[in-house]
Amino acid sequence: MKRTIYFKNKPIIVGAGSIAGPKESEGSIAKFIETKMQDDTFGEDSFEKAESKMLFNAIKTAIQHAKKQENEIDAIIAGDLLNQIISSTFAARNFRTGYLGVYNACATFSEALTVGATMIDGGYLKNVICATSSHFASAERQYRYPLELGCTRPPQAQWTVTGAGACVISSEGYGPKITASTIGKVVDFGVIDANNMGAAMAPAAMDTLFTHFNETGLTPSDYDLIITGDLGTLGSRIFKDLMWEKGFDIEKQHVDCGELIYNICESEYQGGSGAGCSALVFSSYIYKRLKEKKFKKIIMMATGALLSTVSTQQGESIPAIAHAVVVES
Amino acid sequence: MKRTIYFKNKPIIVGAGSIAGPKESEGSIAKFIETKMQDDTFGEDSFEKAESKMLFNAIKTAIQHAKKQENEIDAIIAGDLLNQIISSTFAARNFRTGYLGVYNACATFSEALTVGATMIDGGYLKNVICATSSHFASAERQYRYPLELGCTRPPQAQWTVTGAGACVISSEGYGPKITASTIGKVVDFGVIDANNMGAAMAPAAMDTLFTHFNETGLTPSDYDLIITGDLGTLGSRIFKDLMWEKGFDIEKQHVDCGELIYNICESEYQGGSGAGCSALVFSSYIYKRLKEKKFKKIIMMATGALLSTVSTQQGESIPAIAHAVVVES
Repeated sequence: MKRTIYFKNKPIIVGAGSIAGPKESEGSIAKFIETKMQDDTFGEDSFEKAESKMLFNAIKTAIQHAKKQENEIDAIIAGDLLNQIISSTFAARNFRTGYLGVYNACATFSEALTVGATMIDGGYLKNVICATSSHFASAERQYRYPLELGCTRPPQAQWTVTGAGACVISSEGYGPKITASTIGKVVDFGVIDANNMGAAMAPAAMDTLFTHFNETGLTPSDYDLIITGDLGTLGSRIFKDLMWEKGFDIEKQHVDCGELIYNICESEYQGGSGAGCSALVFSSYIYKRLKEKKFKKIIMMATGALLSTVSTQQGESIPAIAHAVVVES
Repeated sequence: MKRTIYFKNKPIIVGAGSIAGPKESEGSIAKFIETKMQDDTFGEDSFEKAESKMLFNAIKTAIQHAKKQENEIDAIIAGDLLNQIISSTFAARNFRTGYLGVYNACATFSEALTVGATMIDGGYLKNVICATSSHFASAERQYRYPLELGCTRPPQAQWTVTGAGACVISSEGYGPKITASTIGKVVDFGVIDANNMGAAMAPAAMDTLFTHFNETGLTPSDYDLIITGDLGTLGSRIFKDLMWEKGFDIEKQHVDCGELIYNICESEYQGGSGAGCSALVFSSYIYKRLKEKKFKKIIMMATGALLSTVSTQQGESIPAIAHAVVVES
């Protein structure tokens, strides 16, 4: 059994698109975001439709940015948090390309990049889109409570990011290259608090990074950044502790998209989360810094809590997963 | 843009596992099914847990049948109909392998085979599992009404199959080979009746098969069987009519897993449906007949209706998709 795969032909991320809600557009990565929404509905009559339109927008921006025509795209590989990943499906409906729906909760973005890079590296397709989204209001009413109820949130909670990110991966062109992936496995340390995603996901991030170091022989210092998706402040601390116990000090390299995205974490408690969190941060800030060669080599691990409202109600603990993607400038 | 990919190294399906509910175990493919459930709960205290256990059972059977050890499996690629594909996640939690969650509704099985074959063909992994499931009772209460309500069903409705199928795809070994895939695109002809999945999915099946013939230069007579996933009786008729309009007569080769699975369609109306439908029929009847070389070359198109209860309630029509996989004995 091995979980790390290498891409010999180094698929290229030739373009990226990003879109964010009003709150995220005021955060620390604001200046890197392509489209900033004026309000959460994005001109639609439901939050679900707004989310799908956001994903569509991010894909369109990525295609433009890659200087491609729509008919050059072979497939869209996308997923999101809504039941039956309808944001992705309804966004893909507007394109005439192939569509592969993927779902690993908030780890979906790096899963999509892994599948997409495989398709390109093996010469099966020429250009693919990898994209994910999330929306605070559609996630709240599906997973927790409708906003209108005004429920209070516990201190360990995170704030689902309203945002989407999309990347065009190609066999030819100029841009940062995907050189390897480590596929995550399902890890469950028995956390049952559905408001404490960070604690549930941290062991999965540790498992993937530890496996990555073991299988590749690399160490933290080989990376400029070790990026997690949405562990938040508490989850990040647990993650770093777990890595320390395994013999790796990642304090210098580690950054969490959820911790990073908002200026202050006061009203967002532990920071951002959601399938759009890592996609947005990667497709804006990280991607642009890689293109400028300010980062030379990074590893991005989107992290996902694989629960549903039904599994929680039936007393199940929260399984989690993290997929790692190595990107070099 | 192209949607058909070819697998030069011809990944091998070295083993398959199948499990079915009591009703499906009395159907036309009964003698090919490995595990027959005595009752729908499979010894669990919820239908959701039963479905996950079914998928676990199918994966276990496939691994045994492939004469592999669990630690030889690199990844499980799986999906199902439940929100956040919890059947797959909780089944994958029992294995120490990588996990990639996929979702294209009832088209998930051929999507998983496509992603899996790519991973094997390109030499990225050595052994992967592709698996999907569905369960009548868990699907009814999530998508429609709890069984306890005893709601009547309209005549165009289908019956979600209680069943699961799993295949082990390997780079080495003996068995039927996957030689090509045609990735589906999202097709929406504006059907809004969530009870009439066959009509919603037929145009997607047509689009994929027509694209497949166009891109490969093949014709219906090149195949022993042209298999659709779960169009049902009405959907199959529409599909054949649409193909006829495009200039292809597939009457002789076409068979639909949903039409095939039950002995009589009286109480199941248009026949079977669900992500487990094509997985179960393929992993039992089709796989065994391919192994015996009674079928030489088949094309399998699982078909999916990409709606959710929310998209239906918000007045959206039903987008659909079909992915095709070519398997040769």
